[in-house]
Amino acid sequence: MELITQKALLFREYKLNMGPIFPPSIGTPKSRCAKSPYSSRGPRRSRCGSPAPQQWEGRQVVYEQRSGRNSRALLAYDGPGRRVRVLDERKALIPCKRLFEYILLYEEGVMFQIEQVTKQCSKIPLTEPWDPLDIPQNSTFEDEYSIGGPQEQITVQEWSDRKSARSYETWIGVYTAKDCYPVQEMFIRNYSVVLSTRFFDVQLGIKDPSVFDPPSTCQMARLEKMSEDCLW
Amino acid sequence: MELITQKALLFREYKLNMGPIFPPSIGTPKSRCAKSPYSSRGPRRSRCGSPAPQQWEGRQVVYEQRSGRNSRALLAYDGPGRRVRVLDERKALIPCKRLFEYILLYEEGVMFQIEQVTKQCSKIPLTEPWDPLDIPQNSTFEDEYSIGGPQEQITVQEWSDRKSARSYETWIGVYTAKDCYPVQEMFIRNYSVVLSTRFFDVQLGIKDPSVFDPPSTCQMARLEKMSEDCLW
Repeated sequence: MELITQKALLFREYKLNMGPIFPPSIGTPKSRCAKSPYSSRGPRRSRCGSPAPQQWEGRQVVYEQRSGRNSRALLAYDGPGRRVRVLDERKALIPCKRLFEYILLYEEGVMFQIEQVTKQCSKIPLTEPWDPLDIPQNSTFEDEYSIGGPQEQITVQEWSDRKSARSYETWIGVYTAKDCYPVQEMFIRNYSVVLSTRFFDVQLGIKDPSVFDPPSTCQMARLEKMSEDCLW
Repeated sequence: MELITQKALLFREYKLNMGPIFPPSIGTPKSRCAKSPYSSRGPRRSRCGSPAPQQWEGRQVVYEQRSGRNSRALLAYDGPGRRVRVLDERKALIPCKRLFEYILLYEEGVMFQIEQVTKQCSKIPLTEPWDPLDIPQNSTFEDEYSIGGPQEQITVQEWSDRKSARSYETWIGVYTAKDCYPVQEMFIRNYSVVLSTRFFDVQLGIKDPSVFDPPSTCQMARLEKMSEDCLW
């Protein structure tokens, strides 16, 4: 129940159009991906064997049901530092969309939103606790399958926050079976996938830690979130 | 334009709630995945090097924006025979959903819909021409990226039906870079992903070709499509 309540919070933010929800906030900081009771289902269904990567860079595509849009971004994820940087990527054919950079600093409880062209900056409190991009310890194993085909495939696992056959999941996470690389996270409400994030091009480590430093324009940041739509 | 018109047809069927649209009908039978002009963009962006698999079995998850639901099914795909079999998989937590088997025979221009429990059968004309699950010859290269992470990844490519920087895509196909295994197909309308199909557990060959034979109840088939919702 606690997990569901936490997710209800997430969805409340989502409904309030607070912008990109990242990383998904589904609970208080959870222990890392580790051996789990589900390994009793057989070796093929044991949980991914290592902690999920703690510092990495990659790309994401976020899909929102309400708009049907896919938004692409570059991503830098620093688990130990509890911070994330999201840099919107221009996808040429989405008309009239402003592009932002987001720097989420959970240690300080603050998110910076920076308009990429003007460097206008907003400083917004983070209301959710840090939640690592990982499979929570008490998750339910849902499925395991391969993506691709013979000689060109990876094995991934689906985990959810479902607690029994009578409750419904509000979160599904897809991670690789061996090293727990994130592949996809989905949030569900009323059996509908309202938010889906796919992860690509995951590279371990963070080449340039200064991406987490807000630009100088953030010293005079406004406190209101900027709209993602054009102003004209 | 011809391709877009064909896709408009697809969406017309989709809007009319004709049920699962499979395989995606985006044109007249197209030549197989082969070397393309896009290879001039550099070796990493050359088109997948082999024809897409012609006979295979696997699983799919179909996502529809209008409901937000994910529907799972087993799949048998026979390119040379121009036929597809889709067997709904029970996902325990979708309430009140009837499960069907679909046998699509494009040579005969007919689809059989069989209710899994009662074996009630409907016989419905196929209005779209056969379209192989493959990357059409005149597609536009959109992106290439890896899924997973170091030592546990596959490289996939995104292709679309976009014709220039000024037109919008209505179809995106994600296939593995080497052997053209299908990973995901998306259909887009007004910049929204209205239909997305992800493919899993692709195995080459068809173990039991009799899965394409309709059961005996189809000799007395009704002509109306059965609803996917429960009757109570």
